[in-house]
Amino acid sequence: MKFRDALSSITLYEAGKPIELVVREFGIDARDVIKLASNENPFGASPKVQEKIASLAGQMHRYPDDSYHQLKAALAEKYAVTAENIVIGSGSDQIFELISHALLSEGDTVLQNRITFAMYDVYTRQRGAQTFTTATDRHDLKAFESLLEKQPKQPKLIYLCTPSNPLGDALDADDVFQFLEKVSPETLVVIDGAYMEYAAFKDPKKLIEPKKLIAQFPNAVYAGTFSKAYGLGGMRVGYGFGEPSVIAALHKMRAPFNITTLSLAAAIEALNDQPFVAKTLDHTRREMARYEAFAQQLNLEYIDSYTNFIALLFPSGKQASDMANALLREGVIVRDLKSYGLNALRITIGQTDENSRFFERFKANWR
Amino acid sequence: MKFRDALSSITLYEAGKPIELVVREFGIDARDVIKLASNENPFGASPKVQEKIASLAGQMHRYPDDSYHQLKAALAEKYAVTAENIVIGSGSDQIFELISHALLSEGDTVLQNRITFAMYDVYTRQRGAQTFTTATDRHDLKAFESLLEKQPKQPKLIYLCTPSNPLGDALDADDVFQFLEKVSPETLVVIDGAYMEYAAFKDPKKLIEPKKLIAQFPNAVYAGTFSKAYGLGGMRVGYGFGEPSVIAALHKMRAPFNITTLSLAAAIEALNDQPFVAKTLDHTRREMARYEAFAQQLNLEYIDSYTNFIALLFPSGKQASDMANALLREGVIVRDLKSYGLNALRITIGQTDENSRFFERFKANWR
Repeated sequence: MKFRDALSSITLYEAGKPIELVVREFGIDARDVIKLASNENPFGASPKVQEKIASLAGQMHRYPDDSYHQLKAALAEKYAVTAENIVIGSGSDQIFELISHALLSEGDTVLQNRITFAMYDVYTRQRGAQTFTTATDRHDLKAFESLLEKQPKQPKLIYLCTPSNPLGDALDADDVFQFLEKVSPETLVVIDGAYMEYAAFKDPKKLIEPKKLIAQFPNAVYAGTFSKAYGLGGMRVGYGFGEPSVIAALHKMRAPFNITTLSLAAAIEALNDQPFVAKTLDHTRREMARYEAFAQQLNLEYIDSYTNFIALLFPSGKQASDMANALLREGVIVRDLKSYGLNALRITIGQTDENSRFFERFKANWR
Repeated sequence: MKFRDALSSITLYEAGKPIELVVREFGIDARDVIKLASNENPFGASPKVQEKIASLAGQMHRYPDDSYHQLKAALAEKYAVTAENIVIGSGSDQIFELISHALLSEGDTVLQNRITFAMYDVYTRQRGAQTFTTATDRHDLKAFESLLEKQPKQPKLIYLCTPSNPLGDALDADDVFQFLEKVSPETLVVIDGAYMEYAAFKDPKKLIEPKKLIAQFPNAVYAGTFSKAYGLGGMRVGYGFGEPSVIAALHKMRAPFNITTLSLAAAIEALNDQPFVAKTLDHTRREMARYEAFAQQLNLEYIDSYTNFIALLFPSGKQASDMANALLREGVIVRDLKSYGLNALRITIGQTDENSRFFERFKANWR
C-alpha cells in the first residue's frame, strides 16, 4: 500500500518523559522521581473531582453522553456563551487537530510563531499544508503583521499561543484584538489559551475573553483546557469556542465519544470547584517568585512567565541538555528545549518541596 | 473562512441514546432506565479494574506514558506479536480514523459491506474519498470478490467487520484468509474484530488470529477493542495490529496522549482479568439463548449472532421504529436500525433482569 505523501514530512512529537520511563531506564524508585516536565498541576485534580471519579468506577462500561450536554451547559454559563459555540476535544490539542483537518488542504499555508506548541505544525503537515513562522522567539504581533503584508496569498490559519508554550510570555488582549482587525476575514485565527488562567491571575490585561473574541471576530476560535489549572492533564479534556457555523464544521471532523465517561464527569466537577483553581494560581505565583530569585542568584536569564512553568535560558558556555540529563539521572525530570532550537530548559512549577529539590540539584550540577 | 468541500457530504454519527437523555426528555428516574442500545458490557468493568481506577484518582493530573509501553507489552504477549506491531487508539474507532487519514486522498475508493459500522464511511468522507458497498445486508465475501473484479481501479481500503455490527453475523476465518489471497497487495484490508471474543467463544472457526493475519498479509490490519468483552466502552481504548511499516504510518497521524491516564491503567488491568471476560462470554451466550427463544415464540425473524447483541427483523406490517419509541417512553433504550435502512432493532444482551424486563415490555407493545 502507498500511504499519503504528506506523511513523509511528519516527525513524531516528543512528549515529556513520563515517570515510568525514568524508573525503567535509570532504576530509580518511582517515589524518588519528581516530574517538572509536562506543566501538570502539582496538586493533582481537586479533591472533589478525585472523590467523584473514585465513585464512578462502576460506570466505565458506559459510553458518555456524546452531546456533552452537561459540560457544555457549565462552560456556556461560565463563559457567557451558548452550547452552539462549543466543541469538546480530547485536550485542546484535539481542537487544533479538528481545525486543521476541517480547514486545510495541500498547498495551504499556516502562520505561527517560530517557537510555539509543537503540535500545530504536526497537524498542518498531516494535511499536506505548510507552516511559515515569524523569526522571533517570543510572540511579537508586529512580526506577524509584517509577514502577512508580504504574503501574495493569505494563510488559511494563524496560531497565537498566549500565554506561549514553551516560553511563557503573553500578549496583551488589546493588542490581539487590534491585530485581528488587520487579519483577512478568510483567515481563521486560533487563540490557544491553555495557560490563560495563570496569565489573567497575574495581569488582567492578558485576559482574552472568549465571548468578546468570538462576538467580534467570526473568524476566531478560542481554545482552552482542563489539563493545566484544573489539574486534569491525564484526562484529556479541552474545548473550543467559536461562531456556530465554525463549531458545526469542527463537529464534522470530531469522532463520537472523543472523551471518556470519567473525563466528562471530572471536567464538570472541576468547573464547580473554583476555589481549587484559585489555590493553584496563588501557589504558582508564590513559587514562581522563588524560581525568579533562584535564576537571579545564578545570573541565569529567564523569561517573565504568565504560566505554570518557567524557561531558563542558558549562556552559550553551558549546555542546557547536559543539565537536563544530569538532573534526569538524579530523578528530576525537566524539559530540554533543544528540539525547539533553544539552549534552554522549561521547568514546571511543582510543589514547594519539589521546587526546593530542583534548586538544590540544579545548583549541585551548575558548573 | 472556507472549510474543505469534503465536509458538506458528512452527516454526523447518531450515537445510542444515553441514559441522561432519556432522563432529561421523558422525566424518568435514572434508576428506572435500562440501556440495551450501545453493546456495553452489562457487568461493567471487572471489579479488579474498578478497584484500580478508584485508587488512581490521585493521578488524573499526570499525562500517560505516551509510549504505552506496558499496555503494548501486555497485548504483545497475549497475541504473540511485538510492540512494533501495535498502535493504540481512543477506541478501535480511532484506528479506523488513523487508517483513513494516513491512506486516503480525494478520488480514492473504499469497499465495505452495505450494512456495517457507520463510522467507516464518515472517516472516508472526511478525506474526500468515496465508499462503495456490496448489495447484501450480511457480509458475503463472494459479493466483495465480484465487486473487486469489476473495478477498473482497485480500492485503497476494504473494511470487513466480523462479527458484523449492527447485524451480528460473522465470517469464517478460513474464508477471510482465502479472500485476502485475491485482494491486491496495494489494498489495505481492515478486519474489525470489536466483537471477536464473543464469536471465538461461540465458534472457534470464526476466530481470526491477528498474528497469523499480519504475518501472512502485510496489507492487513486487525483492530480490537476494550469496549465490549472487557467492559470499558466509556474508557475509549482500542488497538490495531499490523506490519511495523503500516503501524509506523498510523503513528504519524496519532495525536500524543490519545488515551487517558486512567484508561491506560484500566486496559492493562483488564487484560489481567481474563476470568471476568470468560464470565461475560458465558453469560452472554446463556442470555442470547433466551432472546432466540423469545423471538421464535413471537415468530420474529432474527440474525444468528456472534456478538453481545441481537438484531430483530420486523415483518413488513410492523414498524421497528414504533416499538423503539414505545420502549423508550418506558425507559427501555434499544437501537433502532432505521438509519441503516432496516426495519429492525438491535438489542444489547443485558443483565438477566434487564433482559426479562425487555421481553415483558416488548410483548406488551407487540400488536
